[in-house]
Amino acid sequence: MGGEIKRQITLDHGSGGLKTRELIEGLFLKRLNNPFLSNLEDSATLELNQGRIAFTTDSYVVDPISFPGGDIGSLSVHGTINDLAMKGAWPVALSLSFVLEEGFFFDELDQILASIELASKKAGVPIVTGDTKVVPRGKGDKIFINTSGIGIIPDGVDVGYHRIQSGDVIIVSGSVGDHGVTILTRREGLGFSGDLKSDTMALHGLVKTLIEELGPDLHCLRDPTRGGVATVLVELAERTGLSMEVDEESIPIRDEVKGATEILGLDPLYIANEGKLIAWVSEGSAKRAVEIMRQRIEGKEANIIGRVLDGKDARVTLNTIVGGKRAIYALTGNPLPRIC
Amino acid sequence: MGGEIKRQITLDHGSGGLKTRELIEGLFLKRLNNPFLSNLEDSATLELNQGRIAFTTDSYVVDPISFPGGDIGSLSVHGTINDLAMKGAWPVALSLSFVLEEGFFFDELDQILASIELASKKAGVPIVTGDTKVVPRGKGDKIFINTSGIGIIPDGVDVGYHRIQSGDVIIVSGSVGDHGVTILTRREGLGFSGDLKSDTMALHGLVKTLIEELGPDLHCLRDPTRGGVATVLVELAERTGLSMEVDEESIPIRDEVKGATEILGLDPLYIANEGKLIAWVSEGSAKRAVEIMRQRIEGKEANIIGRVLDGKDARVTLNTIVGGKRAIYALTGNPLPRIC
Repeated sequence: MGGEIKRQITLDHGSGGLKTRELIEGLFLKRLNNPFLSNLEDSATLELNQGRIAFTTDSYVVDPISFPGGDIGSLSVHGTINDLAMKGAWPVALSLSFVLEEGFFFDELDQILASIELASKKAGVPIVTGDTKVVPRGKGDKIFINTSGIGIIPDGVDVGYHRIQSGDVIIVSGSVGDHGVTILTRREGLGFSGDLKSDTMALHGLVKTLIEELGPDLHCLRDPTRGGVATVLVELAERTGLSMEVDEESIPIRDEVKGATEILGLDPLYIANEGKLIAWVSEGSAKRAVEIMRQRIEGKEANIIGRVLDGKDARVTLNTIVGGKRAIYALTGNPLPRIC
Repeated sequence: MGGEIKRQITLDHGSGGLKTRELIEGLFLKRLNNPFLSNLEDSATLELNQGRIAFTTDSYVVDPISFPGGDIGSLSVHGTINDLAMKGAWPVALSLSFVLEEGFFFDELDQILASIELASKKAGVPIVTGDTKVVPRGKGDKIFINTSGIGIIPDGVDVGYHRIQSGDVIIVSGSVGDHGVTILTRREGLGFSGDLKSDTMALHGLVKTLIEELGPDLHCLRDPTRGGVATVLVELAERTGLSMEVDEESIPIRDEVKGATEILGLDPLYIANEGKLIAWVSEGSAKRAVEIMRQRIEGKEANIIGRVLDGKDARVTLNTIVGGKRAIYALTGNPLPRIC
């Protein structure tokens, strides 16, 4: 009568890496597959009678709920705006849904609302509908927020991994790992992050400028959140079948992030960002793209970090600072649960 | 140094009644007010370049997650579809976002997915985008689901409380209290609900027929979920400034619901429904509206339950079975937490 072991959800299933994909492809898509969902993009594109809209959803469970540079409120506004922007969509409306734990303080809730208010106003994207649920003490954790969003994709804009091609240049809009390391060091009460703060930020303004200035030379955009830069590169190499390489020395990483990740044995390329994008741009427009980014606050540390190769073996290679080459693989395990 | 008492979230703030409104009007609207949100409808109407869309969000935290007639999965599909339908919108796309608790069983998750799959297919509304987060054991409760949705409002359709007028007839599409009593008796392990099951059901098909058949004589639609029929009536009386009266004997209530609510000291008019709607229809079309409803499975027990009066004092009166009159007020407290 040996009992069968029943599979259970683990924290790894929320990593954004391999286990998350296993869950989505093995369980969710088997049930819910359709041409929208199977795309596995962060936003769906809907063709309405006239024009296209992007539609996205994200739940935020970050712990702690407040951290240097932001809180769960600003994060939930920026994150959903950015998911829309990565499709080349202009965000026009957000929804806001709370799951509150009984006993959560009004003061704290109001601080988060103030942060949502500020983020929404600054971005120019209104919260148009909402919902609130309360669960008993011990059945939640202070506050979880879902924000969904709608954006309008301008006529002619076509940004996505299907447009990545050999020779494309890979650009990152700024330093990587800031958000993840900020959360981790705060949560664990570690003192070595110095002045580091989350990079949480809305990127739709930057994206709009890139679209206007680069036109069809802008091929694909991704925000390297859960799983970081490495996970995005591995995923898109697999999807396109193309190989990519990145140069370690060209990737902007703050000293605090370098220090913290070295001590903790983490790789900054796998650490979450919340205000950065990776762009695939045709070779001829790459320098201009970096110049455009650097003129804006969101992209002032933008840099070319790599390129798409001719090889069709879907590998991602890191050219290390010491002159070696190292393969980059999908994230296994979950070094940083509840990072967003 | 007497410490100030810091206000805290209570289960009542999730009731859908007075306390929920206090929270929304006192805290949320102060921060996030805009013409969309201040409407306090379950869906926002967005005017895009061409045409109007409805946009809504809902988080589901029902306990238990599975119950006679449905589970948190079907509920989350139907509930969001219904919020769109109540605006006269035809639902075209849903998002799906999970907050899973570490340790939740794959089997249970797959059952919920199967239920989502079935509900989505039956309704003809695809899940187009999604998200999954995992929180550590004890920081959530098995599974919370957010579904947001987009619907298209056909040209010329204008359904909303602004169209309610004196003389309108109030119709309910079927028996009230089924969902709430099912959940409550299951949760508490009470045995007296017999064959009762949740009425969770998608209502957009019924609404489409009503719109097509009644045209502008269909004034307003509401689904009486949290807070039940009474809460909807009180809210719309206040919003319109008009008085309304309902006849107790004409309100369809199952014997199991009557029995259970009597024993528990609850009023079925305040109990949540998940597959019912209330319609305000001009007097001349009321009979026809009931006939149309009764021809469909969703409305086979539809009945006229009351009318909008000439009085402008925004009161709701119940004409009781024994011949008396009783004022109906907004829900205070929260008799049934985590009902949806």
